[in-house]
Amino acid sequence: MTDGLLHRRATSLADGRELIYFDERPDRVRVLHDSRDLPPVQHTSQTRLDELAGEWVSIASHRQTRTYRPPADACPLCPSTPEKLTEIPSPDYDVVVFENRFPSFAGSGPATRALDPFQPQPGTGRCEVVCFTADHRASMSMLPESRIRTVLEVWTDRTRELGALPGIEQVFCFENRGLEIGVTLEHPHGQIYGYPFVTPVTTHMLAQVARHRHSHGSNLFGDLLQRESTGPRVVAGNEQWIAFVPFAARWPIEVHLYPRRRAPDLPALDDVQRAAFVPVYREVLRRMEGVFDDTLPSITAWHQAPVRTGRADFWLHLRLFSIRRARGKIKYLAGSESAMGAFVNDIAPEAAAQRLREVTV
Amino acid sequence: MTDGLLHRRATSLADGRELIYFDERPDRVRVLHDSRDLPPVQHTSQTRLDELAGEWVSIASHRQTRTYRPPADACPLCPSTPEKLTEIPSPDYDVVVFENRFPSFAGSGPATRALDPFQPQPGTGRCEVVCFTADHRASMSMLPESRIRTVLEVWTDRTRELGALPGIEQVFCFENRGLEIGVTLEHPHGQIYGYPFVTPVTTHMLAQVARHRHSHGSNLFGDLLQRESTGPRVVAGNEQWIAFVPFAARWPIEVHLYPRRRAPDLPALDDVQRAAFVPVYREVLRRMEGVFDDTLPSITAWHQAPVRTGRADFWLHLRLFSIRRARGKIKYLAGSESAMGAFVNDIAPEAAAQRLREVTV
Repeated sequence: MTDGLLHRRATSLADGRELIYFDERPDRVRVLHDSRDLPPVQHTSQTRLDELAGEWVSIASHRQTRTYRPPADACPLCPSTPEKLTEIPSPDYDVVVFENRFPSFAGSGPATRALDPFQPQPGTGRCEVVCFTADHRASMSMLPESRIRTVLEVWTDRTRELGALPGIEQVFCFENRGLEIGVTLEHPHGQIYGYPFVTPVTTHMLAQVARHRHSHGSNLFGDLLQRESTGPRVVAGNEQWIAFVPFAARWPIEVHLYPRRRAPDLPALDDVQRAAFVPVYREVLRRMEGVFDDTLPSITAWHQAPVRTGRADFWLHLRLFSIRRARGKIKYLAGSESAMGAFVNDIAPEAAAQRLREVTV
Repeated sequence: MTDGLLHRRATSLADGRELIYFDERPDRVRVLHDSRDLPPVQHTSQTRLDELAGEWVSIASHRQTRTYRPPADACPLCPSTPEKLTEIPSPDYDVVVFENRFPSFAGSGPATRALDPFQPQPGTGRCEVVCFTADHRASMSMLPESRIRTVLEVWTDRTRELGALPGIEQVFCFENRGLEIGVTLEHPHGQIYGYPFVTPVTTHMLAQVARHRHSHGSNLFGDLLQRESTGPRVVAGNEQWIAFVPFAARWPIEVHLYPRRRAPDLPALDDVQRAAFVPVYREVLRRMEGVFDDTLPSITAWHQAPVRTGRADFWLHLRLFSIRRARGKIKYLAGSESAMGAFVNDIAPEAAAQRLREVTV
């Protein structure tokens, strides 16, 4: 089975979780049989409505026992060797996706609805891990452009597949990086969440977009893009994509990367947009990593339209941000941010954009 | 000048910032003259509207140079000695409040409005520091009940005073504790923010409360309290106050403390409620600190009605939460929480409540 350029083979791990190899060439030999003896996956996920916020919270107590910062020679995301069997049965891979052993959401069922807001709902949905490379020491910004293109195709495939599962309302592709972000596995990987609800940030964004459409008759994303794309906060871009520090950035280093032509989600991008994404994405990553002479803990987050709502106006984009505010210093979310949602950013967006532009890439 | 039980004396620091001593007895001698040679306070605060979120973000680049984890013998919140002049000119104090030297908001002006959403607004408002005790090594839970009562009166005084300043729309009293929360000064202290806008969390809460009033004809806070006050998540309480882990807790350790009779904010509490607050608050703090055999990084946040809106239904309460999820382990806000606002909590609220109840206090 192939997905566009990719050669795609699915199998099941010993405990029944799905694993999918995405290979760049058809001649790769991949081990499909997981010879480990694994106990069944436990998941007790619930979603509960926080009525005062109008937001769903997931309760996933089985995650307390998840793998926590294993040494490199016990990495579960490296390929298997005869001496050490990992999550990936093969001795090598290009990009591989599998269901998370410690999922925040799992199992199928209807989308989450608050018939009785004081009753827990099953935490259905799907959580996947995406390994970008078999090389434990690599990072996204070091990968060749061909591999980044493969990862883009995998995100697209997963968005399409998870969005077609019953009860999944939104698909979120993201990457956490760095100890200060709480990453428990250092092997270069991302995650994909299929939520049984539309997330709070997306819900608020759609409400703002609808308000703007009502009062201005135009697309809020488009109006913002027009203003940002020639201003002092532009960081990088090409004919298809534009990257900028947003006017009201809330993180010390924050870049938003938009396709100039609207697409609601990754599957809606055309081939021209896909090809043009790769170099500008890699450039943005390298600029961000070059700002501080220090590791950059970061989050990379694809904002996509929900599966069933808001698709007419939503504008796909990637948000990249770091909590690093200076060498050796972190921006913490303390009382104002965590309790009141009021962000205080110590770096002016225009100054951040200038520093990003000055990095040699 | 006195405020209820307290003896209150205001003065100005060398750079013009206000400082107020709140003393428990009238015979304390306090130094009112700050003999340091201080440069003027710099503040370049702006507020900017994040239109996609409908939320104000503060940009405060002068805060990059703020005092960062000084050694105990250079603590700016200890009383002054002949050898070392600190922010507090006196050789002793009970509770003292002063304007933050590195404020997120400062200066007076009209409340923030988005006439042109793409123009920065002045970051007016007020940020204060509240020192709970002159003892560098103390903590709120170790203080005598009389001192906790004094702190409650000070929060009340500051809510009233800041709420009367032009352009301040919401007053937020809070305490950050612990290195993992990003606390830069270990001396026991809290902060008070007078925001030039209603914060995002409060805005969303008021919208939910209004929706509930419209569809049920009742107060959402009151309905929640009724359900929580007899359930498996109760942690502590007395005739006036009730403390519980909320049904949809988003932090591993989270307790909400409500007055059983509604008050919109701290100044609206009566004397019976004030007196009854002190023991239950201290009990909750001690229970939280006893859950893990480890330091407890935490945030304590007073949710009050805004100055001018939503006062008819808002229900004052204190939220206490920690990011500690296990000994030596922290709950990080990674992609799902930081980018999508979708919290995943690794501890079931009922289990957390049971552990809190089991702590010997």
